Amino acid sequence: MIALLYQSGSHETEKLQIASPVVSPTQLLVSFRAMGSTSRTVFSIEFRFIQFISLICCTPVEVLAAFSQAHLSSHNFFSPNAELKNVINYKTYYFDQQIDHFGFAEDSTFKQRYLVADYHWHYAGGPILFYTGNEGDITWFCNNTGFMWDVAEELGAMLVFAEHRYYGESLPFRDQSYRDAKTLNFLTSEQALADFAALIKHLKKTIPGTQNSSVIAIGGSYGGMLAAWLRMKYPYLVTGALASSAPIWQFEGLVDCGIFYKIVTDDFTKGGKECSESIRKSWKAIDNVTTTVDGLKWLSETFHLCSPLTSKEDVASFKSWLSETWVNLAMVNYPYEANFLQPLPAWPVEVVCKFLKDSKSEDKKLLQNIFLAASIYYNYTGNVECLNTSQTATGSLGYIGWYYQACTEMVMPMCSDGISDMFEPQQWDLKAFSDECYKQFGVRPRPDWVTTAYGGKNISSYSNIIFSNGGLDPWSGGGVTTPVPESLVVIMIPEGAHHLDLRYNSAYDPKSVLIARYLEVWYMKLWIKEDSIKLKSESYTN
Amino acid sequence: MIALLYQSGSHETEKLQIASPVVSPTQLLVSFRAMGSTSRTVFSIEFRFIQFISLICCTPVEVLAAFSQAHLSSHNFFSPNAELKNVINYKTYYFDQQIDHFGFAEDSTFKQRYLVADYHWHYAGGPILFYTGNEGDITWFCNNTGFMWDVAEELGAMLVFAEHRYYGESLPFRDQSYRDAKTLNFLTSEQALADFAALIKHLKKTIPGTQNSSVIAIGGSYGGMLAAWLRMKYPYLVTGALASSAPIWQFEGLVDCGIFYKIVTDDFTKGGKECSESIRKSWKAIDNVTTTVDGLKWLSETFHLCSPLTSKEDVASFKSWLSETWVNLAMVNYPYEANFLQPLPAWPVEVVCKFLKDSKSEDKKLLQNIFLAASIYYNYTGNVECLNTSQTATGSLGYIGWYYQACTEMVMPMCSDGISDMFEPQQWDLKAFSDECYKQFGVRPRPDWVTTAYGGKNISSYSNIIFSNGGLDPWSGGGVTTPVPESLVVIMIPEGAHHLDLRYNSAYDPKSVLIARYLEVWYMKLWIKEDSIKLKSESYTN
Repeated sequence: MIALLYQSGSHETEKLQIASPVVSPTQLLVSFRAMGSTSRTVFSIEFRFIQFISLICCTPVEVLAAFSQAHLSSHNFFSPNAELKNVINYKTYYFDQQIDHFGFAEDSTFKQRYLVADYHWHYAGGPILFYTGNEGDITWFCNNTGFMWDVAEELGAMLVFAEHRYYGESLPFRDQSYRDAKTLNFLTSEQALADFAALIKHLKKTIPGTQNSSVIAIGGSYGGMLAAWLRMKYPYLVTGALASSAPIWQFEGLVDCGIFYKIVTDDFTKGGKECSESIRKSWKAIDNVTTTVDGLKWLSETFHLCSPLTSKEDVASFKSWLSETWVNLAMVNYPYEANFLQPLPAWPVEVVCKFLKDSKSEDKKLLQNIFLAASIYYNYTGNVECLNTSQTATGSLGYIGWYYQACTEMVMPMCSDGISDMFEPQQWDLKAFSDECYKQFGVRPRPDWVTTAYGGKNISSYSNIIFSNGGLDPWSGGGVTTPVPESLVVIMIPEGAHHLDLRYNSAYDPKSVLIARYLEVWYMKLWIKEDSIKLKSESYTN
Repeated sequence: MIALLYQSGSHETEKLQIASPVVSPTQLLVSFRAMGSTSRTVFSIEFRFIQFISLICCTPVEVLAAFSQAHLSSHNFFSPNAELKNVINYKTYYFDQQIDHFGFAEDSTFKQRYLVADYHWHYAGGPILFYTGNEGDITWFCNNTGFMWDVAEELGAMLVFAEHRYYGESLPFRDQSYRDAKTLNFLTSEQALADFAALIKHLKKTIPGTQNSSVIAIGGSYGGMLAAWLRMKYPYLVTGALASSAPIWQFEGLVDCGIFYKIVTDDFTKGGKECSESIRKSWKAIDNVTTTVDGLKWLSETFHLCSPLTSKEDVASFKSWLSETWVNLAMVNYPYEANFLQPLPAWPVEVVCKFLKDSKSEDKKLLQNIFLAASIYYNYTGNVECLNTSQTATGSLGYIGWYYQACTEMVMPMCSDGISDMFEPQQWDLKAFSDECYKQFGVRPRPDWVTTAYGGKNISSYSNIIFSNGGLDPWSGGGVTTPVPESLVVIMIPEGAHHLDLRYNSAYDPKSVLIARYLEVWYMKLWIKEDSIKLKSESYTN
């Protein structure tokens, strides 16, 4: 089923009140009236065999927005108190995992960390929401996946956050894990999925009452890819998956290599007049200014750089650092103050764009404005003394590990042309990339392996996976956003940045993400119910 | 769907003639009359959504047997000429495979052999029947899988036989492949499945007209397990699988460890009066006779052993060799003269049992009879000068490779008690087994990994797999023979030994295997049709 949620063009929410809800797995009828309105409007949304939404009137977004908000408010799901976060309270455990699941010469184990919160769990039967950890410390993902904490009570669910091997505390060879190609050899998505599978089996074996619990995999970004792939490869263990902002198609030959930077550019174009144009012009301005030693000095001082630029290579690095800054801003363009990668204001791209209104300024003026814009990302708190171009401030993500993964399996071609995007033209050069990987890690990428392992665009044989995507998120370009078979679900969140749906509910949330979260919960409940029906029928026949 | 075919108690076939066939994917109606009979009997078999067979009258075996034979004869599928084998004619190719699909430190490739026969293939759209090679030379499986050659023309199919890594010519490290745990490290089912997946992608990419071809995985025994697992792990590549005599449940905790030897015993019990009882008593007779040096000499001479028995260890090996002989006979208890593991007469267990009619003979007489019985297996041609107890004559199977696999992933617990079976009591001792593996290969088994990887008995989330089992086959004990969800198919062949259905059609075939083959082709056609419908609908929506 495809739920297409169209851009509403407004961040404001309309208050609606539910009148008479009738909800069943196969049919869902809701009538409601706008709050304060006397006219009663009746809409009907039919989920016939979960295969389509038949809309008797109005556009999908109107009906769904109205329905979900009405329904959510009746569940106190969206309320003025939503800003009061649930208390994050979990226990930390460690599980012995094989370092190599797929070979027997290396027979050692390592301790995989995982976090468990079970105080909302309905004993004997309540589901398990299983976060498939990605490239970073699991406590960070745990703290940044408010959605799971928000829905735990409603679903009577146990929350489990499993750390990905080679990140956080889950280091196969302790401080030697990143030593060389030999110790890094077991850092692959297949090994991570096998860890998750083994851990789920362990939980079900050791926690009384979990034997018949449905397990739903949840993840965002690379974690979302892992959630989807876990359902694809171990469907007997996870009844469904919520893959949020998961670019499983950002691989060779599946999407245009320019799509990512194009979406970043679109965000800045929407962020303010002349904003993307200013950035597009800044690269040439940097080149112009840095032809002289004085120019290098001026730029270093203007940007308060911790290490002054002294060479052509430094300038190239400086440009990369700026590019990554714009990319990161697009990813975390959330509707409220947040601290995901960095402490930032609400709608940070709009804030940044306030400094970039005049693309026709002369070079030095333009670059001074670029500095002010970049400072929003690096110094929103005002406490930073100098900017370090060797860091792009990306929270607790484990970037060396991710670079290794990008150099092996996670080969995501990216390119820019400077025309349809605001970046300097750069072709995707696999040969150069491969040589760089070999130099850094002693390994070469296999760009076609991921599509062999997981099917690329051929996903019609899989089921029970929600692919949710943010329209503002550059990673949506490699996400599953086009028609999919009935067994899968695509949810678009036009005003959403990178996995906004996985964050806490907020009074500032755009309508579309509330609807997305509502649908996500609805499908999870459906899968859990289907599991329980299957379980009953199996107990009759066995 | 479950097609239960009951023992008919006779090897004879009744000739039936089709009267008015009406066949559709959702309903299948057949009326027929017995050949030479004037009375017209009408039966109805309904395949409603392929979920059940509704039988209006008669037992399933009667209806299905009659139907299938009638239908088969109308297709000239079963005919007096069936003994005239199709000419086996293929081309041999080699494909560069990564030695390690799941790690990047080892970046070398090896040449995987595969055989292709495309002279019946319907260009652009005809399906590919893909044999997932097991533990041996692929040409041997190619020659022993007559079913594929028999159905190629009817299905317009291309046949591909892919060799399993570490067997035949597909050696990752050439003559060093079996050197030690390090070179053997890439001999796993997951690597083999990844080879098959990469090869299928390669075929579809390089052979014009195959892009939209349905691929159906076919395999017997371990090859059948691989066929099923290929569908489970790479459903986007194979639309369905025929897993013949595939003991995917012969793993820890899934079935009784004694089931295997119990079925062997049942075969010998059915094979002739006092047959299994004679074998049960032979072990004690061997012990009695071999207490003296003269006795050892007598036994060695009686059995024409190439290396005379001189120690207690030799006697233990001798007994193991005899046990394996009875097991192999049960596996290849085919209804006609055949040369699968060894040249043998039709129904060899019955032939063997002719020598074992008197379980009450005194020890030496009993052992002389045991020798005559074993000679059927080892010397049916009469050309063998002495019997070698270090070999059990198992065709072209690569036994060292299989022992390694059994010592790592393929841990199949076996036990006997001497009461419900005819073997000496032996418990399953994982510790001792593990120590032996460590001694031989430097690796230790992980008995629970296969069930984690492939789901054990939790197979309800998979689809389009036919599990066919022979009632005479000891491996059926670990096969999928109990109720399965509607998405899977179980076919029982009561008179079938080890993957009889994958052999050529024969005039001596029991009814049940003809029905089985008919159903197998029927399901394959259905999957191909479903693929083509899906393809059309996708081309509309994209």
